[in-house]
Amino acid sequence: MATAPTVRKIINDPVYGFITIDHPLVLELISHPYYQRLRNIHQMAFAHLVYPGAMHSRLHHSLGAYHLMGIALSELKSKGVSITAEEELGAKLAILLHDAGHGPFSHALEKVLIPGLHHETLSLLIMEHLNEHFKGQLSTAIAIFKGQYPKPFLHQLISGQLDVDRMDYLNRDSFFTGVAEGVIGYDRILKMLAVKEGQLMVEEKAIFSIEKFLISRRLMYWQVYLHKTVVSAEMSVVLIFKRVLQLLQQGTVLSAASSDLDFFLQDREAGATIKQHLDRFCRLDDHDVMTSIKNWCYHPDKVLSTLCRLVTERKLLKIRFLKEPVDPDRLAIWRKEVAHRLNISEEEASFFVFTGKASNTTYNPKDERIHILFKDGSVKDISEVDNALIHYGSSLAFGEISKEYICYPEESKI
Amino acid sequence: MATAPTVRKIINDPVYGFITIDHPLVLELISHPYYQRLRNIHQMAFAHLVYPGAMHSRLHHSLGAYHLMGIALSELKSKGVSITAEEELGAKLAILLHDAGHGPFSHALEKVLIPGLHHETLSLLIMEHLNEHFKGQLSTAIAIFKGQYPKPFLHQLISGQLDVDRMDYLNRDSFFTGVAEGVIGYDRILKMLAVKEGQLMVEEKAIFSIEKFLISRRLMYWQVYLHKTVVSAEMSVVLIFKRVLQLLQQGTVLSAASSDLDFFLQDREAGATIKQHLDRFCRLDDHDVMTSIKNWCYHPDKVLSTLCRLVTERKLLKIRFLKEPVDPDRLAIWRKEVAHRLNISEEEASFFVFTGKASNTTYNPKDERIHILFKDGSVKDISEVDNALIHYGSSLAFGEISKEYICYPEESKI
Amino acid sequence: MATAPTVRKIINDPVYGFITIDHPLVLELISHPYYQRLRNIHQMAFAHLVYPGAMHSRLHHSLGAYHLMGIALSELKSKGVSITAEEELGAKLAILLHDAGHGPFSHALEKVLIPGLHHETLSLLIMEHLNEHFKGQLSTAIAIFKGQYPKPFLHQLISGQLDVDRMDYLNRDSFFTGVAEGVIGYDRILKMLAVKEGQLMVEEKAIFSIEKFLISRRLMYWQVYLHKTVVSAEMSVVLIFKRVLQLLQQGTVLSAASSDLDFFLQDREAGATIKQHLDRFCRLDDHDVMTSIKNWCYHPDKVLSTLCRLVTERKLLKIRFLKEPVDPDRLAIWRKEVAHRLNISEEEASFFVFTGKASNTTYNPKDERIHILFKDGSVKDISEVDNALIHYGSSLAFGEISKEYICYPEESKI
Amino acid sequence: MATAPTVRKIINDPVYGFITIDHPLVLELISHPYYQRLRNIHQMAFAHLVYPGAMHSRLHHSLGAYHLMGIALSELKSKGVSITAEEELGAKLAILLHDAGHGPFSHALEKVLIPGLHHETLSLLIMEHLNEHFKGQLSTAIAIFKGQYPKPFLHQLISGQLDVDRMDYLNRDSFFTGVAEGVIGYDRILKMLAVKEGQLMVEEKAIFSIEKFLISRRLMYWQVYLHKTVVSAEMSVVLIFKRVLQLLQQGTVLSAASSDLDFFLQDREAGATIKQHLDRFCRLDDHDVMTSIKNWCYHPDKVLSTLCRLVTERKLLKIRFLKEPVDPDRLAIWRKEVAHRLNISEEEASFFVFTGKASNTTYNPKDERIHILFKDGSVKDISEVDNALIHYGSSLAFGEISKEYICYPEESKI
Repeated sequence: MATAPTVRKIINDPVYGFITIDHPLVLELISHPYYQRLRNIHQMAFAHLVYPGAMHSRLHHSLGAYHLMGIALSELKSKGVSITAEEELGAKLAILLHDAGHGPFSHALEKVLIPGLHHETLSLLIMEHLNEHFKGQLSTAIAIFKGQYPKPFLHQLISGQLDVDRMDYLNRDSFFTGVAEGVIGYDRILKMLAVKEGQLMVEEKAIFSIEKFLISRRLMYWQVYLHKTVVSAEMSVVLIFKRVLQLLQQGTVLSAASSDLDFFLQDREAGATIKQHLDRFCRLDDHDVMTSIKNWCYHPDKVLSTLCRLVTERKLLKIRFLKEPVDPDRLAIWRKEVAHRLNISEEEASFFVFTGKASNTTYNPKDERIHILFKDGSVKDISEVDNALIHYGSSLAFGEISKEYICYPEESKI
Repeated sequence: MATAPTVRKIINDPVYGFITIDHPLVLELISHPYYQRLRNIHQMAFAHLVYPGAMHSRLHHSLGAYHLMGIALSELKSKGVSITAEEELGAKLAILLHDAGHGPFSHALEKVLIPGLHHETLSLLIMEHLNEHFKGQLSTAIAIFKGQYPKPFLHQLISGQLDVDRMDYLNRDSFFTGVAEGVIGYDRILKMLAVKEGQLMVEEKAIFSIEKFLISRRLMYWQVYLHKTVVSAEMSVVLIFKRVLQLLQQGTVLSAASSDLDFFLQDREAGATIKQHLDRFCRLDDHDVMTSIKNWCYHPDKVLSTLCRLVTERKLLKIRFLKEPVDPDRLAIWRKEVAHRLNISEEEASFFVFTGKASNTTYNPKDERIHILFKDGSVKDISEVDNALIHYGSSLAFGEISKEYICYPEESKI
Repeated sequence: MATAPTVRKIINDPVYGFITIDHPLVLELISHPYYQRLRNIHQMAFAHLVYPGAMHSRLHHSLGAYHLMGIALSELKSKGVSITAEEELGAKLAILLHDAGHGPFSHALEKVLIPGLHHETLSLLIMEHLNEHFKGQLSTAIAIFKGQYPKPFLHQLISGQLDVDRMDYLNRDSFFTGVAEGVIGYDRILKMLAVKEGQLMVEEKAIFSIEKFLISRRLMYWQVYLHKTVVSAEMSVVLIFKRVLQLLQQGTVLSAASSDLDFFLQDREAGATIKQHLDRFCRLDDHDVMTSIKNWCYHPDKVLSTLCRLVTERKLLKIRFLKEPVDPDRLAIWRKEVAHRLNISEEEASFFVFTGKASNTTYNPKDERIHILFKDGSVKDISEVDNALIHYGSSLAFGEISKEYICYPEESKI
Repeated sequence: MATAPTVRKIINDPVYGFITIDHPLVLELISHPYYQRLRNIHQMAFAHLVYPGAMHSRLHHSLGAYHLMGIALSELKSKGVSITAEEELGAKLAILLHDAGHGPFSHALEKVLIPGLHHETLSLLIMEHLNEHFKGQLSTAIAIFKGQYPKPFLHQLISGQLDVDRMDYLNRDSFFTGVAEGVIGYDRILKMLAVKEGQLMVEEKAIFSIEKFLISRRLMYWQVYLHKTVVSAEMSVVLIFKRVLQLLQQGTVLSAASSDLDFFLQDREAGATIKQHLDRFCRLDDHDVMTSIKNWCYHPDKVLSTLCRLVTERKLLKIRFLKEPVDPDRLAIWRKEVAHRLNISEEEASFFVFTGKASNTTYNPKDERIHILFKDGSVKDISEVDNALIHYGSSLAFGEISKEYICYPEESKI
């Protein structure tokens, strides 16, 4: 008689029904404070300002990606692809922890809080730290995560055009925002995955699903991720922290709501010695940032308090996409007007009137490839497949599209 | 030609698809900071510790209830029930604001933060304050909310056995937790609503839907709202704040992460003069509480820091439902053991070993009634309807069921 | 490297997403004409007259039950229950074919078309026939189906209080009728299945899901399966065939639209030699019946043609549930009136005015049992579990409830 | 007090929840035998051979389109577009009856059963017939249907690039096939509809939803409507009827299972006098065709009986899409082989080996247009909108794509 597994935990997930945890190490990692922290970091930062349902956490996303990884590996095994138990666990752990290095409002604050440290680097540092703690049990996971494991498809499932990370976040973000049109046919794509010569590919009959997947992504970018209100809110948070750092440099008395966030604001060299501060970093979450912003609404610095109120009261800067770059002279005039109205310097007015760029690439065949496996065993990139929508106009419609925008206070006549 | 409405805003909602805002006053109220605050208060407090999807906010719930109110009123009007535009707006505003008085972790902290002030009282104060600001435009809403409006069914839609508040939260909480079995057939019930002599009732053929609704509620209570982990987490937060207040009373130096929360911790009489502090109250949200708890993990008081770590690291006290009350002598022994192990006093140990009671009433015919309207015009309470499940055993199965529990540290042998 | 399976077919199912066929014998059986026939038999007979979506076929239901069986067995295996590949295939084949013996409009016509032959008997005959054809490969399936296999839980999964047959049809029928409230949490129940001493049971924490399941079933019975229009349509078809048999006995010239249906109408002893006519039986489907009814709309016999038009034009007999039995004298008067109006004999009028009984048992602990397995290893019937709704009033609310009804033409004043 | 409507019927629909009928004329039309007939015509003909859930009827589709029309008109009215009660009813009736002229397996048999009569012509004849019966109450509906009503947008909602017919069938077909990826965001598109100068258009922010809609359509065509098995089954039915007509012309004794179908097979000029035979036509449904095919399995003509068995036993001809046209010489050789193997003439073999063409146009700007209405009041065709995917490569990817195919018996080596 088979031995019952020692661990079997079922987690309800509105997106997939149930997520099953059936390995003790997975359960231990999920219970670790480094992982639990992700509970308090919104997956979609400020998207909930526009889509009130979008409150889901990075923890929930990474559990979802873990679930999809399990399905993907089962499907591949049922098609005869050789995957050992060790590799399966490795790939699952790697996807579970792939976002562990995200700080609060990461997309916005990554470059501000700890300059020079990309979240993937931090995820890797965290995995290595946990690998020590768990006595080498994460070694395979780390090799897969770094792309150094002999079976490339395992890494491609974590990071590639058709990885389970992307599948989960598109699906989950569509689900929680209520943008039903963004939902992707992840189950069909997973059933069509194949491996040839170690590379991840999809069967020919998945072509239309892949098209739909790329179009969904396009829709989610323009309708959700780059929604004007969301971009404006994120820019406000970036500027709040830029102002805070400026003020600190000038010696202004200013503290964050938590000592952990304070530490990273004071010690601008923390990135260089991050390994010593990993514990501290792994205590930061959205609460530290949001409570600080709430407190700073009453700070004597007018620029800072005004920016903070924009966010807490959701009276954000207006934003408009531009057909052509703004004339620097007009920008100067607008800033002058704001400076005058708010009684601040013109330089300070650039916190309220500024331009930026939002961009998105649906499918760039130069970077990465979606390989289509035909019944006769031949392989083509999807952009070369006859009849595929992407075949036509890939260089145009699916390449990077970027839009410049300008932000300004509602009261300004811009 | 009809005049186009001046306001028309569509909000994506994964539960209902779209929520339409088509009155300028509704839009203004939603944009008010008092309402926006609800964005940062979880509808289900700590339920996300068990159901990671349950991150939705009180703002989202009240928008949903507002949406259902619109449907309910349309249905009733299409059946010939007279409802004026003024009354329709009033009922919608009342449900929109019915939860505005909730503080952070309200269920747990209501009696601790501002003793003696129920959240409904605060909702009413907030409505009255806004009514001044909006020059009396909320007067009908307030009369309906207080149950003083001549058409009782309007109040019953806000607060009664079949109110849209309950319909939305059961539905929304089921949706976001992923406990699909809790989903209720709100659309069918709404289509079956009727009014007779000013009282809200449902048509006969809704009986099976109502049964299902009551059973769903029962399931949600036992499986979700009173889930052991959720109860344990909420009790921890209650005890954290009890300890904080104790320490403050003893003169210990201790501050919350935000000055707003600090104010209410320091001024224990704030409830009596709450009208003067409404602005302050309406800035409190989950961030203040959570950041404070994170900070207090490092407070020198062992009881406080230990309790705070239980919550932040999700290493909660164990909890067990009891078949019979705990023998006080055994409780004393257990507390002694904990006191010894943690090197604290026995009195302090009662923060870690304690008993409590979780309870739920599915349908108590004594309190409120679900009226069934028959085709022949007669009316019966559902508990008197032949063939209705609830008819049998209502006194037992649907009455209040309560369970005692005991909490204790994982290390204790209890 | 593992060998790829020789068969792997994926079938889209709106209820479960995808159904995977991964064994060549399953594929061969599905492709067999005996099985393909089920495509043309509505699972819910005339329910589509009320619920237009309810057009799904018996083939679709049995594929769905097959899918659930696969999940149930996987779950049990993952919990350490020993199930061999042979047994797994056997249980899957048994459920796939469990309804193969259904004729067209089986619920209504079973006793009329081939008297004395229950559909389960026919399913077994068909399995035995196929077993010969497939050289004994169905022997385990047959043993399981008959309840003669040593591991009782395998049979209980096919036929019992919590079998996958019931789970699929409740779920599928809810889905296609659009009676969303009937949807059951099949996935949660499947995850909670357990086996102890060979018996199928569910874990303690499934109690609320089971309650919901029983209530859903109750709702589906009263709202859908025993819907008045559906009952009236089914009774009409029964009476059409009774009249046809009467006319044939009287020597009237009358033929069905197909020679296969004709055969069974002419040869009233076919049941006794059914093994010889299995091929013929396995060509009958809804088309034979419906085309015959359409043709008979023009038959000279007034009773027959009138009944047939009731069905084809969906102008069905009225039906009313009765609080007490109808007085035979009044019945006679009503029949007289109809006889007079339609210019038929009083005996013939009994085809248009008649009484009958609709009934349903939600959970009858005398018949079968739902065993609850507690954490401490003890087992109780759900009706004995403390706190279970069913505990109270099981004898009343969950026992058989039956309602008498009367059918009559719309024009009659009854 | 408002008067209660005299009619209020709610129909469960798994796709939209509930469909409300609130006008007595709509209810009368739905109850008419001409409409009820649609209950027995599959919306998707043989698609259920591949997608077992696709059993829904034309009646269900037209109810769904009727429901969407109601939503579309409400939305437009709420935006200030003037629509009278008369027009609203007219548009709803027109869409309700737009498919009334479909015969069984219409897509396949339209040109065979009654040559020269398009189903739209028949729908119009039926509406005119009903208009007489209902004393002119359908006059507005007919004017709208014919595109002769002064407000063009009403006709465009029935037949145009964004009509509710298409929205419902894409949505409903996706739903019932379980091809979830085909589901379109109909609710968002409906909310974005607008009217300018009498023309139907969509607001700018609907662009991504429209793109998704076009891509879904593309996917449904290639994956479902033009699925090889479906095309093969439809071709078989076409050839069955071609053979039947050939045999009848040769004087062979042959009859259909119903006298109604027989009539149209015998009287090849019925199309010219169809007004006299409308009752007969409106009794034809899938049952007549399918029972006939079942009976013909035993007809002495080998070509006919073989073709019929292909369909009833679902052992269809193989089908392969071709990269280039088949060489006529090879076709002749293959036919010779089949003729020899089946012992039929070479001419008769062309019923088993033949070529054909499947085609689809996603969006052909030459034919019809999707107008985008910008905030500044300007209007552009979607193919001219900057940034729209369709902008690039519209001439290629979205134009007509057609594929030639060849059909042949499985045994042939082709």
